[in-house]
Amino acid sequence: MARELIKGNEAVIKGAILAGCRAYFGYPITPASEIAHAAAQYLPLAGGTFIQGESEVASIQMVYGAASAGLRAMTASSGPGISLKQEGISYLAGSELPCVIVDIMRGGPGLGNIAPEQGDYHQVVKGGGHGNYKTIVLAPNSAQEMCDLTMLAFDLADKYRNPVIVLADGFVGQMMEPVEFPKLKPIKGEKPWAVKGTKETRKNLITSIFLSPEELEEHVMKLARKYAEVERNEQRFEAYELEGAEIVILGYGIISRILHTAVDRAREEGIKVGLLRPISLWPFPKQKIEELTRSVEAFLVVEMSTGQMVDDVKLAVREMRPVHFYGRTGGMVPSVEEILQKIKEVGR
Amino acid sequence: MARELIKGNEAVIKGAILAGCRAYFGYPITPASEIAHAAAQYLPLAGGTFIQGESEVASIQMVYGAASAGLRAMTASSGPGISLKQEGISYLAGSELPCVIVDIMRGGPGLGNIAPEQGDYHQVVKGGGHGNYKTIVLAPNSAQEMCDLTMLAFDLADKYRNPVIVLADGFVGQMMEPVEFPKLKPIKGEKPWAVKGTKETRKNLITSIFLSPEELEEHVMKLARKYAEVERNEQRFEAYELEGAEIVILGYGIISRILHTAVDRAREEGIKVGLLRPISLWPFPKQKIEELTRSVEAFLVVEMSTGQMVDDVKLAVREMRPVHFYGRTGGMVPSVEEILQKIKEVGR
Amino acid sequence: MARELIKGNEAVIKGAILAGCRAYFGYPITPASEIAHAAAQYLPLAGGTFIQGESEVASIQMVYGAASAGLRAMTASSGPGISLKQEGISYLAGSELPCVIVDIMRGGPGLGNIAPEQGDYHQVVKGGGHGNYKTIVLAPNSAQEMCDLTMLAFDLADKYRNPVIVLADGFVGQMMEPVEFPKLKPIKGEKPWAVKGTKETRKNLITSIFLSPEELEEHVMKLARKYAEVERNEQRFEAYELEGAEIVILGYGIISRILHTAVDRAREEGIKVGLLRPISLWPFPKQKIEELTRSVEAFLVVEMSTGQMVDDVKLAVREMRPVHFYGRTGGMVPSVEEILQKIKEVGR
Amino acid sequence: MARELIKGNEAVIKGAILAGCRAYFGYPITPASEIAHAAAQYLPLAGGTFIQGESEVASIQMVYGAASAGLRAMTASSGPGISLKQEGISYLAGSELPCVIVDIMRGGPGLGNIAPEQGDYHQVVKGGGHGNYKTIVLAPNSAQEMCDLTMLAFDLADKYRNPVIVLADGFVGQMMEPVEFPKLKPIKGEKPWAVKGTKETRKNLITSIFLSPEELEEHVMKLARKYAEVERNEQRFEAYELEGAEIVILGYGIISRILHTAVDRAREEGIKVGLLRPISLWPFPKQKIEELTRSVEAFLVVEMSTGQMVDDVKLAVREMRPVHFYGRTGGMVPSVEEILQKIKEVGR
Repeated sequence: MARELIKGNEAVIKGAILAGCRAYFGYPITPASEIAHAAAQYLPLAGGTFIQGESEVASIQMVYGAASAGLRAMTASSGPGISLKQEGISYLAGSELPCVIVDIMRGGPGLGNIAPEQGDYHQVVKGGGHGNYKTIVLAPNSAQEMCDLTMLAFDLADKYRNPVIVLADGFVGQMMEPVEFPKLKPIKGEKPWAVKGTKETRKNLITSIFLSPEELEEHVMKLARKYAEVERNEQRFEAYELEGAEIVILGYGIISRILHTAVDRAREEGIKVGLLRPISLWPFPKQKIEELTRSVEAFLVVEMSTGQMVDDVKLAVREMRPVHFYGRTGGMVPSVEEILQKIKEVGR
Repeated sequence: MARELIKGNEAVIKGAILAGCRAYFGYPITPASEIAHAAAQYLPLAGGTFIQGESEVASIQMVYGAASAGLRAMTASSGPGISLKQEGISYLAGSELPCVIVDIMRGGPGLGNIAPEQGDYHQVVKGGGHGNYKTIVLAPNSAQEMCDLTMLAFDLADKYRNPVIVLADGFVGQMMEPVEFPKLKPIKGEKPWAVKGTKETRKNLITSIFLSPEELEEHVMKLARKYAEVERNEQRFEAYELEGAEIVILGYGIISRILHTAVDRAREEGIKVGLLRPISLWPFPKQKIEELTRSVEAFLVVEMSTGQMVDDVKLAVREMRPVHFYGRTGGMVPSVEEILQKIKEVGR
Repeated sequence: MARELIKGNEAVIKGAILAGCRAYFGYPITPASEIAHAAAQYLPLAGGTFIQGESEVASIQMVYGAASAGLRAMTASSGPGISLKQEGISYLAGSELPCVIVDIMRGGPGLGNIAPEQGDYHQVVKGGGHGNYKTIVLAPNSAQEMCDLTMLAFDLADKYRNPVIVLADGFVGQMMEPVEFPKLKPIKGEKPWAVKGTKETRKNLITSIFLSPEELEEHVMKLARKYAEVERNEQRFEAYELEGAEIVILGYGIISRILHTAVDRAREEGIKVGLLRPISLWPFPKQKIEELTRSVEAFLVVEMSTGQMVDDVKLAVREMRPVHFYGRTGGMVPSVEEILQKIKEVGR
Repeated sequence: MARELIKGNEAVIKGAILAGCRAYFGYPITPASEIAHAAAQYLPLAGGTFIQGESEVASIQMVYGAASAGLRAMTASSGPGISLKQEGISYLAGSELPCVIVDIMRGGPGLGNIAPEQGDYHQVVKGGGHGNYKTIVLAPNSAQEMCDLTMLAFDLADKYRNPVIVLADGFVGQMMEPVEFPKLKPIKGEKPWAVKGTKETRKNLITSIFLSPEELEEHVMKLARKYAEVERNEQRFEAYELEGAEIVILGYGIISRILHTAVDRAREEGIKVGLLRPISLWPFPKQKIEELTRSVEAFLVVEMSTGQMVDDVKLAVREMRPVHFYGRTGGMVPSVEEILQKIKEVGR
C-alpha cells in the first residue's frame, strides 16, 4: 500500500484508476478542476481515455456512451455543471447504466462563488432530473475517503447498474492530506448487457425509452424494487460517541470534522453529545436514526445550506424527538464555537 | 369575457398574453409542443417575440436575458427539457429574475414515453438545480386553470422577483375544455431594477455572482427571508368535502379530478372521505394539512409516480396520523375503482 | 431624398431596410459590428426581425430559413465569419434562395488583425464552398455605395434567386460620409416558390438535394445557364479617364479611391493613365477589359492582397497585353506615391 | 512490403499511420465515412487518438490543437464538411501548422448527392477561407495513391509547415484495389516550434494574430515566399503518351483513368493524343504545360464540374493554344466514348 500527501480532488482520480476506471469526460469548473487535470495526466498513462467535452451536457452524454460499452466511466463538476447534467443523469438511471459522477460543491444559487457550500443536496439526493429515479450518493470527509468512496462508488455502480454520485465540497476537494492507496485489484464481474462493438453484443439494447405505459410502468417498478434493495443494503454512516448520548448532532462532509471537534469539546464540558455522520446520503441512514430516537433527547442538524438534509432527518425521526437546525451559507463555514453554542441551546 | 373551447396547452399562451407576456423562447418537445406552436402564432400578433431556441439550454438563457430587460418572459418544455434548464433556473432564482416556466410532464426517467406522469415533482419542487433556492410551483387541473394559473404565475413572479413553474401533465396539456378568458388588464408595477438599454438603467446590476462568502451568505439569507414570506402568503389548495371527513385523499393535477369522482362515489357508499388538492406545490399547503390532522383519521396520497409529494405530506402531517400512498407510473392513470378500493383499505 | 452623414456600415442597414429587408441574422465581428448594431436598432422599428445568432453557422442557416419563407433577409460578417458561412452559402445557392451577405474584410489569414485588407476575394468570388455555384459579388467604394449596392444586391438576389455578396473592407465600412437615401419603394414581384406557412405554399419545395445524378446534373446545368445569363447582364464597372489611356490601372473598393487620385496626379505629369474599377467582381467586367486590350499598352492591378483579382484580369486580358501587379497586405494601404511610382515603372 | 486488397478510403488511414499520423478528428459524412471508420479502428491500435468531433468545425479545431503540440494530425470529410472547415483551414495556414485534410468530393452545391463530382476544386485550390493563404493539394487516382499521396502529404505538411489537402472523389474513395504498403519509416525532423506541454516549449507561440499591419504584412510576405518556394519545388504530374502529341487532354483523379483509356483508343485510331494528369493541383504543374504549348496543337480539359481547373490551365497556356473544356456534373461520369468524340471535335 502506497502512502502519499495529496489533494482530495487528485485522490478521486487515483482511486478511480485503482478501481478500474478507464474513461473520463468532463468540462473544467472551479473547485473541481483538479479532478480534470489529474484525469488528463493519469488516465492516458493507465491506458485510459480523457476527453475534455465541449460542454457539461456533452460530457455526461459521453459517459453514457462509454458506460454503454461496459467501461468504468466518470465525470466531475461543481453545482452549475451538475445542473446541466441532470438530463443525462436521468437518462443514465433510466437506462440502468453504471457510472460515477463527482460533485465538488461551490456557493450558489446561480454563479454564486467558488467557496465551499452544501447547497447541492437536493439536486443530487432528491433527483434534480425528471422521472422516478434515484442515484446513490456518497459523501467523503477526507482525502482518504475521496479515494475510498470513489472506489466504492464504482463497485456500487456496477453492482446496481446505477449512477453513483460522490458529493463533496470545495474544502474536501482542495485540502491536502496523506492518503493510503490500496493495491489495484482486478474488477470482478462481466457485463453481458453492454454493447461492445462485437457481434455477440450487437443485440443488446441500452435504452430508457419504453413507449407503452404498461412497459414503462413495469420498468419503473423494476427500478423501484432495485432502489428498495439499495435502501436495505447500503445505508452507511460513521458513529462517534453515540454511547449514552443525549444530543446527537448530524452533519456530512467537511462539517462532520468540525462537529467531531465540537463533540470532544462538549464532552470535556460534560455535555453528553454524540455525532452521527451520514456517509451515504441516499440511501439515508434512516435505520440508525430511528434506533437513536429511542435513547436520544434531541437532534441537531448542521449544514452549510439553508436546510436541505434536515428534511430527511425529520422524515427519519418521525416527530419522536425535536430536530434542530443550524446552517451557514455562501462559503461561510460554522466554527466549533458556534456549534458548541448551538449544542448548549439545544441541551437547555 | 370570451369563452372558447381550447386545449390546455393553448390556454397557457392565451393566458400568458393576457397577463402581459411578450417574449417566448423554447424548444419543442411532446407533450408540450402546442405551447410553442401557440406562442409562435399568437405572440407576434400581440407585438411580442417568439424565438425557437437552438436548444433547451439556450432557451432558458434567452428568458434570463428578456427578464433582465424587464419583459414578462416565459418558456415551456417537458421533463427532459426542464432537466436541461436546471442550471438556468438556478441562475434566474439567484439573480431574482421573474419568469414563468411551464412543465408538461411525460413518462420518465430518461426518454421514457410521452404519456402523462408526475415524476417531475422533485425536480421542480425541491430544486433540481444547485444552491439554496426555491421556485413557486402551481399545478393546474383543467384548461381553465392552465390559463388562470399561468396569469397568476406572472403576477407572483413579478411580486417576488422569482421564477414560477406551472406544473401540469400531458393530460391537462392535451385535453380540450371550454375556457373563460378574462379581459386584458394593464400590468401594474414598474421594474426599476431592470436593464432596459437606457442610460438610466445602465447602472442596474442583474447578477447571481457574489464573490465574498459574507456577501453571498447575506444574499442567500435575503432569498431565504423572501421564501419564508412566500410560504406564509401563497399556500393555495382546493378543499372538497372536507367537512367531517375521516379520510382525506390528496392529489394534484389530473389525479385530483379522478379523486373528485372517487370522493363522490365513496360518499354515496357512506364513507366519509374528503379531498385536499394542493394548487401550490411550493409553498406546500402545510398549514391546512396540519389543521386537518386534528380531525382526520388517515391520509391517502395518490400520485402518478413512485411517491414524491408524499414526503411533503408526511412532513406536514408530522406522524400525527398515518399517511398512505398509492401510485401508478409510466403513463398509467389510476382509475376511480382503484382509488375507491384503496380508500376502503385505508378505512379499515 | 434624405441626406445624412453616416458610417458605411450603417448605410448598409439603412439601404437594406429601404430595399425591403426585414430580417437580419448575424454574429458580431470587427470591423463589421456596426452593421449588426444598426440592424438591432433599426430593423425592429421597421417591423422587422433582428436575431443575434448563436454562431456564424447558425446565422447563415437562419438566413436560409427566412429566405425560404420569401423574406428579404441578410447577414454580415468579416473574413473568418464568412469562412464559417461557406457551407450555408453553398446551400443557399444550391437551393436558389435570394439573400444578401455583407463581408467587411479584415487582415488574414486566420485571426490576422482588424485592419482593412482584400484577402477574401477568392473565397467570395471563386466560391469558398463546395459544388459548382457562383455568387454575385458587388464591391462598393463609398458610404453612398454601401447603401446603393446593398439595395441593388437585394434586387439582383430576387431577380436571379441567388445569394449576392457585398464585399467591402474595414475602411469603407468604418468611414463616415454623406449619403443620399432614396425613397422607400415598394418591392415588386411575388415569390410563388416560397414556403410561407400557408396551405397554398405547403407544396413548395426548397431544397438542394437531388439524389439521382441525372437530376442533379440537370439542376447544375440550370444553375450554369442562370450564371451565364448573369455574366451577360450584370457586369458593372466605373471608368475614369480611359479615353486615350495607355496604361489602365484596376482596383476595387477603397483602393479605387487612391487610384483615382493617382490617375489625376499622373495625368498632371502627362502620363496617359486611366482607371477601371470593377463594381461587380462576379460577374467580372471581362467585356470592358477585352475591349480595352485593343487600345491600351499595359494593365496594372492593385490590391490589398498578394494577388487574387489579378488572375481574373489575366484571364480577361488573354495575354494580349502585359498585366502588372502591386499589392500590400496586413492592413497596409498603398499610398498615392507608391502607385505613381508603380505606374511609372509600368510605363517604361 | 505488404500487399492488400483495400478500399481507397481505408488506404488513406493505413498510409497515414505508416506516415506517423497519431491523431484523427472527424465527423462522418458520405462518401468519406470509411476514413473515419478506419481511423477509429486502427489509430488506437497504433497508440494514436481517434475522436469523433461534435461537428466539422470542432474537428478541424482539434486538428489545430494536436498539430500545435507537434503531432501528425489529420481530418477528413466531403464537400459540405470541408466548407465548414474553411475558417479552421485559414487559421492553420495562418499559424503555419502542418496537417493533412482529406476531401472525398460528392455532388453539390448544397446537399447535392453522394455521387462523385469534382466541384470542390475552387474551395480547396483557390482557398475557400479568408486571407492570403494557400494549401498544397494532391489528387490521387487510385487506392495505391490514396496511401502514397497521404504519406507524401504528411511529409510536405511538415516540410513547409502548411496544411496539405488530399482531394479525391467518391469513386477513388470507394473503389477496392490492391495496395502495396511500404515499411513504416521513422519520421525525421524535430519540431522545435511546437508547444508540447513541457517547460522548454512553453515559450513557443502558435498564433495567427498579428495586430500591427506592419507585422501582419511581414508575416503574409513570409508566407508568400514560402508559397513561391512550394511552387518551384512541388509541381507534380503524370505524363502519358505526350511524345509527339498534338492534342493534350488534362484531368485529375478518377477522370484521368478514363482519359487514359481514351488516349489508348484514340492512338489506336491514329490520333496523336497525350495525357497530362496534374497530381498536385496546387502548385499547379504550370511549367510542364508551358513547355507543352511549344509543341501541342490544342488542349482539352475534362472535369466532373462546370469548369474549375480549366481556368488554371488557361492561365498556364497563356493563349498560346486553344483550351477546350468538357464537363459532366451531379455524379455523371463521362464515358470513354464521350471523351473520344470530344477529342475528335478538338482535332478537327
